[in-house]
Amino acid sequence: MINVTVWNEGLHEKSDPAVGRVYPDGIHGCIKQFLSPQADFSVRTATLSQRSCGLPDKVLDSTDVLLWWGHMAHDKVPDKLVEKIRQRVLGGMGLIVLHSGHHSKLFKALMGTTCNLQWRDADRERVWTVEPTHPIAQGVPQSFDLPQEEMYGERFDIPAPEKLIFLGWFAGGEVFRAGCCWQRGLGRIFYFQPGHESNPTYHNEHVQRILINAVRWAAPTLPVQLPEGCPNPQVTPEERYREASAQ
Amino acid sequence: MINVTVWNEGLHEKSDPAVGRVYPDGIHGCIKQFLSPQADFSVRTATLSQRSCGLPDKVLDSTDVLLWWGHMAHDKVPDKLVEKIRQRVLGGMGLIVLHSGHHSKLFKALMGTTCNLQWRDADRERVWTVEPTHPIAQGVPQSFDLPQEEMYGERFDIPAPEKLIFLGWFAGGEVFRAGCCWQRGLGRIFYFQPGHESNPTYHNEHVQRILINAVRWAAPTLPVQLPEGCPNPQVTPEERYREASAQ
Amino acid sequence: MINVTVWNEGLHEKSDPAVGRVYPDGIHGCIKQFLSPQADFSVRTATLSQRSCGLPDKVLDSTDVLLWWGHMAHDKVPDKLVEKIRQRVLGGMGLIVLHSGHHSKLFKALMGTTCNLQWRDADRERVWTVEPTHPIAQGVPQSFDLPQEEMYGERFDIPAPEKLIFLGWFAGGEVFRAGCCWQRGLGRIFYFQPGHESNPTYHNEHVQRILINAVRWAAPTLPVQLPEGCPNPQVTPEERYREASAQ
Amino acid sequence: MINVTVWNEGLHEKSDPAVGRVYPDGIHGCIKQFLSPQADFSVRTATLSQRSCGLPDKVLDSTDVLLWWGHMAHDKVPDKLVEKIRQRVLGGMGLIVLHSGHHSKLFKALMGTTCNLQWRDADRERVWTVEPTHPIAQGVPQSFDLPQEEMYGERFDIPAPEKLIFLGWFAGGEVFRAGCCWQRGLGRIFYFQPGHESNPTYHNEHVQRILINAVRWAAPTLPVQLPEGCPNPQVTPEERYREASAQ
Repeated sequence: MINVTVWNEGLHEKSDPAVGRVYPDGIHGCIKQFLSPQADFSVRTATLSQRSCGLPDKVLDSTDVLLWWGHMAHDKVPDKLVEKIRQRVLGGMGLIVLHSGHHSKLFKALMGTTCNLQWRDADRERVWTVEPTHPIAQGVPQSFDLPQEEMYGERFDIPAPEKLIFLGWFAGGEVFRAGCCWQRGLGRIFYFQPGHESNPTYHNEHVQRILINAVRWAAPTLPVQLPEGCPNPQVTPEERYREASAQ
Repeated sequence: MINVTVWNEGLHEKSDPAVGRVYPDGIHGCIKQFLSPQADFSVRTATLSQRSCGLPDKVLDSTDVLLWWGHMAHDKVPDKLVEKIRQRVLGGMGLIVLHSGHHSKLFKALMGTTCNLQWRDADRERVWTVEPTHPIAQGVPQSFDLPQEEMYGERFDIPAPEKLIFLGWFAGGEVFRAGCCWQRGLGRIFYFQPGHESNPTYHNEHVQRILINAVRWAAPTLPVQLPEGCPNPQVTPEERYREASAQ
Repeated sequence: MINVTVWNEGLHEKSDPAVGRVYPDGIHGCIKQFLSPQADFSVRTATLSQRSCGLPDKVLDSTDVLLWWGHMAHDKVPDKLVEKIRQRVLGGMGLIVLHSGHHSKLFKALMGTTCNLQWRDADRERVWTVEPTHPIAQGVPQSFDLPQEEMYGERFDIPAPEKLIFLGWFAGGEVFRAGCCWQRGLGRIFYFQPGHESNPTYHNEHVQRILINAVRWAAPTLPVQLPEGCPNPQVTPEERYREASAQ
Repeated sequence: MINVTVWNEGLHEKSDPAVGRVYPDGIHGCIKQFLSPQADFSVRTATLSQRSCGLPDKVLDSTDVLLWWGHMAHDKVPDKLVEKIRQRVLGGMGLIVLHSGHHSKLFKALMGTTCNLQWRDADRERVWTVEPTHPIAQGVPQSFDLPQEEMYGERFDIPAPEKLIFLGWFAGGEVFRAGCCWQRGLGRIFYFQPGHESNPTYHNEHVQRILINAVRWAAPTLPVQLPEGCPNPQVTPEERYREASAQ
């Protein structure tokens, strides 16, 4: 069983009626809805306005894969919490960063770069699958269209992805590395660009398939173990050498 | 002309007479000495005990490549300075992190991981060149020995290097990714493991060759430009499309 | 069910009694024996001396993952068969290349390089796990010793591995990228260095765990589909553009 | 001085008057013309119809960087010559593969994959710079347009590029990894997609800048040395170990 927590800032849905109409249960609610039917997933949601931003220790410590949607309130997430989550990712918890989460403190801390990009509202996007055999691309067509999506364009200031799974094409003339994988410490990280709050992107069947796949891919292969310091084995080289020779 | 600043914590040399004998002018002094004869290098040093940790704006802003040696006083470098340096690396300044600098705030902030490793004093190391055609490996033999060096062993908790140039073999039975390259933002980063304060590693001709090469490799190809935010081009997709069609 | 075919040249075992004593059923027999108990594996063997080198179309076409051990008779494998296997790897069949298989026509054709290395008989090896969370490393300790193994040393002339899972340390002073992953076309490839014919390496529990894991990792995620040519979609850019706009 | 040889099949220019009008001196002639003014380049051309396909040993053996344009006559280049060139690339010669050269025997042999892609004539392309600090991108704008270029679209069946420098956007809705770097053996390889024979692509100033940069990047850092076999150092592990200890 993979314990999934869908974290959402959850502000646009309340402050902007148009967004509320697209996601009446919040973006987190929509994502929970399509993840939950997977028999091997146990799905919770958490939002910024909850106590401890919805991520008290007992939630965080029992999360295998965390999804993160944020935008207008990145700076409202306390540094201490960000660091706690980062440590857990380094210890093996999977992390899926969604759309404007590219500028979250958490993603920037794990990447080490600015994660800047260029953007423009209300374009058309076509998503291309570059690595069709990657677990995250299973069941996803060679390309699919999102009639309305925010343009995110290169240069995206990220460390070169360890796996580049999807590329985004925008009618206005831009391209974007739309689906990228990294490992940091013992944790796996997937960034996926489509998902602007005012577009019905998370209702798209291919986007849903991608996120379901991503949860399974990002799930830890070992029990999550917070990083410790640097061990100093007390054995001389000669002992080590003799030890090896004796076998 | 490449403006090089060699930063050193500079404490072991003063507090430990044995270290002082190996590096009477400090590790920074030794490195400056072998870098300076390069006609295209202009070399300065900076240390923790100087005003602004030796890196006031006017020094930092005129540095093309920064070398960083630190160990016992990582936490004495102010967070604000670390962030300023990190921004400059993202803007294109080259960074060469030496030995125990693996645990500096700066390196960890750029990598996003713990940079933990295992270690043991006083082993013997053989350094192997894995990528002989990389600019940093020019003039470096297939392998060379360091009769006395601190063992740093795997697992080294770093993002997978974009280029793995050197591997370290230790007589006591460990291996290490001893020379690694990454790009972060517009800046190039090289980590090099040999260089314990009580060993004459920086007097070794091959180590000197590697660091000379690394400075040239890490030097910015464009003027350093601090990162700005995310541009939002004010053009509709249709305008962009027509613009492209009209050419 | 993963259909596994263990291919072995199978000559050393017959011509050298010492090897025959280590592997009375052949290296392929030994590997089959420890793979077979896995409930999701269906395991066959194939050897050079069989009709069609043991790989007639009906065997090859029903193989999901192929393991390959060869050494003294690389040139006895017909070019046509090599090309047929290569096409199947590009179409999604997993490939695990063992030890001296580094110089097989098949591996060299897929890598594009010489796959040269340096070597010496009868050393001691310690294998280090560099990526502990990779599926191939599950259940494998941080390091384990092989008291007798052939030394394979750097530089190993391969394309930089997409994932470097294991590093080998040799008592004689060498290091080696001992476990490496690549993707070629739709197929996954794993190279694993330990496995000299006169050493009981394939009787080692950790080596067995690694190969069991590797079979599962290399198994195709989609039905294997031989590569075809370059499609030429008959649609004008304008039609494509209107198509996208209309949605 | 970098010895550059521009190889071109040279058939379209003769058989198709429209192509002849775009490149009256052949594609090779055009490329030679814009490379030659570089003071550190010595540029020759070679074509398929010449003796030894224009690449007799004395030409090949004195070439530091080879550019390769081919399309309709890939199969006219003898296997033996292809293998000779491949060996020289593995020994350090730089290789720049242009446009339809993606399907040349040489490129496919070095990549190990089919190098298939999808294509369509007469689209509009916008080239985006993803790695602005890479030597090949120096002086190249963030994006530039090619009003008429053949569409090459994903999935491009190549090994994941070690550096992805340029992405192509096509008005008809496709994207492409348009500028990619790999190292094979000691040689550097750059593939660049724009350059269809009936379009004036090689007259474009940015394309010219890219190819000038690529020649300098691909030039060998060491004298080219053809690969030899696998050395077998005759030293026992104990001797090696004592040797290291004695220093």
